[in-house]
Amino acid sequence: MTGATAVVRTAVRAGVSVCFANPGTTELDVVRAFDDTPGARAILCLFEGVCTGAADGYARMADVPGMTLLHLGAGLGNGVANLHNARKARSRVVNIVGDHDVDHIPHNSPLTSDIKGIARPVSDWVRSAETAEDVSADMAAAIEAVSGPACGVATLVAPADILRNEGGVASAVLRENGRSPVFGDVDAVVDALRVGPEVALVLSGRALTEDGLVAGARVAEATGCGLMHDGASRIERGAGLPIIHGFPGTAASATEHMASVRTVVLAGAEPPVTFFKWPGEPSSRLPVGVEVLTLATPVQDVVAALLAAADAVGAGPTVTRTVALDVPSPPTGELNVESAGRAIAAALPEGAIVANESITSGGPFGSHSRACPRHTMLSTGGGSIGWALPQATGAAVACPDRPVLALSGDGGAMYTIQALWTQAREGLNVTNIIWANREYAILRGSLRRFGVDPIEGASASLTDLRSPDIDWVHLARSMGVPGSRPETAEATYDAVARAISEPGPHLIEVVV
Amino acid sequence: MTGATAVVRTAVRAGVSVCFANPGTTELDVVRAFDDTPGARAILCLFEGVCTGAADGYARMADVPGMTLLHLGAGLGNGVANLHNARKARSRVVNIVGDHDVDHIPHNSPLTSDIKGIARPVSDWVRSAETAEDVSADMAAAIEAVSGPACGVATLVAPADILRNEGGVASAVLRENGRSPVFGDVDAVVDALRVGPEVALVLSGRALTEDGLVAGARVAEATGCGLMHDGASRIERGAGLPIIHGFPGTAASATEHMASVRTVVLAGAEPPVTFFKWPGEPSSRLPVGVEVLTLATPVQDVVAALLAAADAVGAGPTVTRTVALDVPSPPTGELNVESAGRAIAAALPEGAIVANESITSGGPFGSHSRACPRHTMLSTGGGSIGWALPQATGAAVACPDRPVLALSGDGGAMYTIQALWTQAREGLNVTNIIWANREYAILRGSLRRFGVDPIEGASASLTDLRSPDIDWVHLARSMGVPGSRPETAEATYDAVARAISEPGPHLIEVVV
Repeated sequence: MTGATAVVRTAVRAGVSVCFANPGTTELDVVRAFDDTPGARAILCLFEGVCTGAADGYARMADVPGMTLLHLGAGLGNGVANLHNARKARSRVVNIVGDHDVDHIPHNSPLTSDIKGIARPVSDWVRSAETAEDVSADMAAAIEAVSGPACGVATLVAPADILRNEGGVASAVLRENGRSPVFGDVDAVVDALRVGPEVALVLSGRALTEDGLVAGARVAEATGCGLMHDGASRIERGAGLPIIHGFPGTAASATEHMASVRTVVLAGAEPPVTFFKWPGEPSSRLPVGVEVLTLATPVQDVVAALLAAADAVGAGPTVTRTVALDVPSPPTGELNVESAGRAIAAALPEGAIVANESITSGGPFGSHSRACPRHTMLSTGGGSIGWALPQATGAAVACPDRPVLALSGDGGAMYTIQALWTQAREGLNVTNIIWANREYAILRGSLRRFGVDPIEGASASLTDLRSPDIDWVHLARSMGVPGSRPETAEATYDAVARAISEPGPHLIEVVV
Repeated sequence: MTGATAVVRTAVRAGVSVCFANPGTTELDVVRAFDDTPGARAILCLFEGVCTGAADGYARMADVPGMTLLHLGAGLGNGVANLHNARKARSRVVNIVGDHDVDHIPHNSPLTSDIKGIARPVSDWVRSAETAEDVSADMAAAIEAVSGPACGVATLVAPADILRNEGGVASAVLRENGRSPVFGDVDAVVDALRVGPEVALVLSGRALTEDGLVAGARVAEATGCGLMHDGASRIERGAGLPIIHGFPGTAASATEHMASVRTVVLAGAEPPVTFFKWPGEPSSRLPVGVEVLTLATPVQDVVAALLAAADAVGAGPTVTRTVALDVPSPPTGELNVESAGRAIAAALPEGAIVANESITSGGPFGSHSRACPRHTMLSTGGGSIGWALPQATGAAVACPDRPVLALSGDGGAMYTIQALWTQAREGLNVTNIIWANREYAILRGSLRRFGVDPIEGASASLTDLRSPDIDWVHLARSMGVPGSRPETAEATYDAVARAISEPGPHLIEVVV
């Protein structure tokens, strides 16, 4: 078989069977290999940022690595922003990037570039394949590299002749399942946890799966410590799950709201920091003067660590304080971020997956959905916008029986709007909700914080999405997605409920 | 003044006054600096690949560097593909990329990344600013780095606090104009040129300006050598200009069509190579057995070299054999690539700028437009698709009095479709012509070449843009651009002529 067929068979055998692809000439043997490999599924995306964002969303929900197929350095470049998000979210993505034939590279033809150089800043593992015989072992190594608790992004660069040549042999992927879980010093943490109310246990990463949340809540109930989350790139949420609060967004609010806390215990979380640095304010979001202990770092097995901690503190087998179901009633009247957030929450069905990139418009939805039927909430991880629609696309491929919502600002949605086409082609049940505030609202907020008022001139034109207004209904329709622009809160509720219940993708423009 | 204001004033003083921007929080002081700097013009693009492609198009037509303002590593990543094209085209682009405050970077907040690492593969010059006092000198160095004949891409990474801090002083840009031009050994080349018909003089880069073409043609007329172009990222074309032919696309056709040629003289051109390597075929496109001499490399002053060569061979002062005006009559009847290409050529006005990314559909237009009124033709340079619409956007900003056409395949246009919005906002006279063949036709051609027939399964689905068809008229309308889908050759001619004559952008979907 060809090197390419060996690569694809190796991936499928390891459970990595779905590939979000935007191939070029140098990747055509991989394209052909999908035809030769039972169980492989290749999904076309019309822009590489959709491929990488969808692979991330698939990986988060399928719990196996998402795969991409990208064309040379320029194609990989187009995928960089959502690979950044995937990496920061500790998702699992394996990229196959074609290169020119080995003996063509020195000729510096137009599309020749430093592919590994482009890959490194967004990859935890990078390798260039050297022979058709070994390229499947390289693919196996890529999958292995992201299969442990550290997760991450692996990029395999494969010259076209190595993919084309015969001599490939499918390889086996060695799993790390047999290894002991690795985490921090449970005894030291347990001693601190026993102080109870003076301790905040901060969960992130896989600690926010149901298993992790329950283990963390058992520790909290046994010791009286606080239970918080931070950096929730994926969190299980809603009725029946343990009660947990978000870590405050600034050191000042943390100091105010966590006044009794003396010790912060990190379980899969990094020490909390602000997104950006504001003049005169600290980068850290920790309350002043707390001690920080680490139960498990983000690259360790945090669920095992929480279970060990629960045992060590003599926690009970179950959690008693859980979120009680409390669905908001559908709103009526004027449409704004409050009523729209409530409308979406009121329509949110059990099992929904929400790719939430609302930024400035998402607050009310977050509050109103807190006690909705159980659902999964995803957020960027890396803060690069243009994430929600691709993420939702991949999540919907991973979970075809679950309704998926993408919530995005209008500014962010424009970066990777081509995701709509893939949703339409694949018939994915994604409800894309666009917060059309017609500005980069977060930048306007920052300008005001810097004392710019009124916002005029370049400060206005570079943060304003008007002139012309984007017509999201026409934009969706152009790619085969039915769209609507409801004008009241009740019409928004109806539109969201209908979009979720009907098969296939929809787009709802919410002008706020 | 702030570091940011010093940077923008330095740029404007050096003639680098137009910035294609997609800023974030870390770049807001640069945004404010545009308000403080007379003569600066900042243009919002809704995706960074539009910024970098537009800066490239602006630079090619304004003959001063195009500037971008991009947000952190992820924003730069989105601009990589068109920076690749700009660099390969030896255009002149200066990127300003914000970074976090210096003391925030070690905290590894979500948007922190290796910005210089992302920049290096697509930049000829990269620097990270260290103080507000010196950041404008860094900007001056960036502009100087791309101002010589070598051109290129310069990326200045500037932490937000350095942009924000007071202490900036605008710097002067040192021009290289005083230096002697640098090129190869004219005497050696002239000895070869005297052999006349056995020599082909191959022009590229700035040799394809009017001055370069005329100098090259004077050499050809004096010696009898052939005159050819290769790698034409910008070429002046049409009636009144010297007659020149494209270098053949493969070694086999070069050997066949250049049978009498014994020597190839490169004037600003690289040795011709194929885009991709095909099994059993060479990378080089040179005829078998020719000698290659270099009059000027792509990084030398090729126009000065051609003028020196013309003097050395005793060339006459003017060119006698030029292209005679021969405009095709407007076609009628069925719409296909032949009739559509003829319709566009028939409507092409004097002074038009054509950003041509037609790939598989552009052949007939190229032939029919050869003897049209004088115009400028631009092509990618780097072969990364998603180039034409941003390129046309920047060219139209540079040349507001000239009509601009973007010719793009449907596949390519989708990568950077957000360019339409900037065209609408700025009221740019761009006629976007989309070849809607509803497939990645070049990949289908390559698959057939590899013996795949019929094209089915993944080979079909990954190269097919149907299911759903993209509705380009709705897509244009969603971003404020009037669109049409003519159904005959005569309607296409009418639509192109009308779009060119009316102010503002238009989109014409040509279903072929």
